[in-house]
Amino acid sequence: MITLNVDLDERSYPIFIGRQLLGDAALVKPCISGTQVMIVTNETVAPLYLDKAARAFAEFEPRHVILPDGEQYKNLEVLNRIFDELLVQHFDRHCTLVALGGGVIGDMTGFAAACYQRGVDFIQIPTTLLAQVDSSVGGKTGVNHPQGKNMIGAFHQPRCVVIDTDTLQTLDDKQLSAGLAEVIKYGLIRDAEFISWLEQNMDKLLERDPEATAYAIETSCRCKAEVVAADEKESGIRALLNLGHTFGHAIETGAGYGHWLHGEAVGTGMLMAADLSMRQGWLKAEDVQRVENLIDKAELPTRAPHNMTYERFMELMAVDKKVRAGRVNLVLLKSLGEAVVTADFDPEMLRETIEAHRATE
Amino acid sequence: MITLNVDLDERSYPIFIGRQLLGDAALVKPCISGTQVMIVTNETVAPLYLDKAARAFAEFEPRHVILPDGEQYKNLEVLNRIFDELLVQHFDRHCTLVALGGGVIGDMTGFAAACYQRGVDFIQIPTTLLAQVDSSVGGKTGVNHPQGKNMIGAFHQPRCVVIDTDTLQTLDDKQLSAGLAEVIKYGLIRDAEFISWLEQNMDKLLERDPEATAYAIETSCRCKAEVVAADEKESGIRALLNLGHTFGHAIETGAGYGHWLHGEAVGTGMLMAADLSMRQGWLKAEDVQRVENLIDKAELPTRAPHNMTYERFMELMAVDKKVRAGRVNLVLLKSLGEAVVTADFDPEMLRETIEAHRATE
Repeated sequence: MITLNVDLDERSYPIFIGRQLLGDAALVKPCISGTQVMIVTNETVAPLYLDKAARAFAEFEPRHVILPDGEQYKNLEVLNRIFDELLVQHFDRHCTLVALGGGVIGDMTGFAAACYQRGVDFIQIPTTLLAQVDSSVGGKTGVNHPQGKNMIGAFHQPRCVVIDTDTLQTLDDKQLSAGLAEVIKYGLIRDAEFISWLEQNMDKLLERDPEATAYAIETSCRCKAEVVAADEKESGIRALLNLGHTFGHAIETGAGYGHWLHGEAVGTGMLMAADLSMRQGWLKAEDVQRVENLIDKAELPTRAPHNMTYERFMELMAVDKKVRAGRVNLVLLKSLGEAVVTADFDPEMLRETIEAHRATE
Repeated sequence: MITLNVDLDERSYPIFIGRQLLGDAALVKPCISGTQVMIVTNETVAPLYLDKAARAFAEFEPRHVILPDGEQYKNLEVLNRIFDELLVQHFDRHCTLVALGGGVIGDMTGFAAACYQRGVDFIQIPTTLLAQVDSSVGGKTGVNHPQGKNMIGAFHQPRCVVIDTDTLQTLDDKQLSAGLAEVIKYGLIRDAEFISWLEQNMDKLLERDPEATAYAIETSCRCKAEVVAADEKESGIRALLNLGHTFGHAIETGAGYGHWLHGEAVGTGMLMAADLSMRQGWLKAEDVQRVENLIDKAELPTRAPHNMTYERFMELMAVDKKVRAGRVNLVLLKSLGEAVVTADFDPEMLRETIEAHRATE
C-alpha cells in the first residue's frame, strides 16, 4: 500500500492506494470522530461492494442510502434524499458520511457533508478510475444545475481517501476510458515524461494490468495532491487541472447529463484545447497528433456532437466557472507538459477549433 | 453612524449601524470585488426598499430576484430560484449577492452565496429587527428541511452588514416583537445590566424610539460580534447564543414553518429554558418571573401550542444540531446574565417544564 498526503494544515489527509483495502477498519477508524456512519452509494456499486465496504465501519453499525446511478441524478433533488435519510436516522453533527462509488457519488456525498448541519466529516472510497485519480482528491464537491455543471457546491475536504485498485476489475470499459482521460490530463498539463509513459503503456492500462494501473493512479494522485496543497480554493495553479473541462462541461450540459460520461467529454475537450493551442502558435501539428492518438488509444471520443455549433458552445461556456467579467478563460498548452490559463485567444481560431471537432452528421 | 467590526482575520467585516444608510454607495463599494451585483429580496420588502437599496449599487447595474415572504419558503426549492437567476444572467464567481430583507432572506442569500460556483461574496442589508440584531451577523446561513430547522447550510461570512434603523419604521408589530426576543437573549446569556435596561426601556422599544432602538441594536450586535469572533464555527461559547432555540426550533417545526415567527418561538423557548434552570436549582422563582414579564412585555407568546406534548418536543429536539450521541444539549441559565450548555438535566424536570408551558386547549 502507498500512502500519499494532501498537505492542507489542519485539513490535511491521507490517500491510501493499494489492493484489498476495502473493508479495512484500521485505515478508516482514525478518521471517524463521532459514532454515526452513513454510506452513500448507488444502484450499480451497492450489489458489488456495499457489504464489503461496510465491514470497515462495522463497530459504528453503519446505515446506507442508495442513489440512482448517473450524472443526470447529480442534482439538488437527489441530494435531498441524503438529507432525508440523515434526519430520519437522527444523525448529529458529529457523524461521518462515506462516499462509495464514482465521481457523482463522491461529489454529492461531499456536498451533503459540507451542508448537513453546516458541515460534517466524510470519507472518499472511489470505485471508478476517474474518481480514484481525480474527483475524490481535493475537496471539490457539488451538484449540477440544468444550466451548468457543478454550479452549486462547496470546497470540503475529506478526512481520508481509500483507493482499492481491485474495484477497477468490475468497472465497465467506457468508465475505464473516461478515467484515463483525467490520467492523460496530468501528463499534458505538467509531466511530459508521463505522456511518453502513457503512450507506451496505454494497452496495459486498458487490459487493467495491476502494476501499470497502480503506477498511473499514484502518479495522478501525487500530481493532484501537490496542486491542491499549493492552491486549495483554485485562485491560481489549480485552474490548470481544468484542461479540457470548459469544452467538456459544455458538451456534457449540451448533450444532456448522463449522455456523455464526464471523462469522455474531457477527452474531446483536451483535444480541442490542444488544437486551439496549435492555432495560437504554441503547439506543433505533431504535438496535437500525439494528443489525438493518445485520446483515441484510450478509446475516448475525439469529436463533439454534431449539434454542438460554435454558438452553442459559446452559450454554454458563458456560464462556466472560469468566466470573469464576460470573458471565457481557457486552459491551453504552451507545450506538451506545460499549461496556462488564458482569456487571450482569437475567437476566430476558437470557431475553427470547434468546427474542426464537431462530428459529421 | 456607528461602525462595529467582526474580527475574523481575513474574513473580518464591518457592521454599519445608523439612519439613512440604505442607498449609500460609499459604504458598500469597498466590499464589492467584481462587476456583477444581484439583490435578493422578498415580496414584502421589494415595494418598500428595493429601489432605494439598489441606488447604492447603481454603477454595477444590479439585477434582482424577488422571493415569496415567509419561513415556509426557506427551502432548497426556493433557494434554487436564486441559482436560476444567477445562471440566466451569466453571473460569474466574482459576483456579489445582496440580502435585502429579514432573517429568511439573509439566511437563504448567504447560503446561495456559499454554494454558487463554490462560493461568492455577499452583503447583508437586514430590514427586520431580528435580522439586524442577530441573523445578519456571524455567517450562519442555510435553509430548513421539513424535519428540522436550518439543517442544511454553511458558515459563510458577509463582506459587510448595513443596518439602516429607519427600515424598522415599516416593520409590523409582530415582527418587531420577534426581534426583541433576540435582544432579550443577549441580556439573559451575558449582560444582567442590559436586562435591567430592557425592563426600563421596553415601552420605548415598542414605540420605536430611535435612540433606544439604536442602543439596543448596538448592544446586541456588539455582543454577537464578540461571541462570533471568539468562536466562529460554534465549537464552544457561540452555542450560548442558542438560548431558547432548541425549544424554539421544535415549536417552529412542530407548528409548521411560517405559523410561528422564529423570534416568537425563541421567546417562549427562553422562558422554558429559564423555567428548567429554576427546576435544576439555578434560578430563583422571581428570576423566572422577571424573564416571563420581559417576554410578555415585549408582546411575545409565553406558551407553546397545546399539541406540543413532551413526546412531540423530544421527537423534534432529537434532530437539533445541539444533539450529540443521542443526548440533547440545552442552553440553560446559571443566573440571569450567565448561560451554560448542558446535557445534564433531569428528564422529569424537562417534562414538567414542557407541561407547564403548553397552552391550554
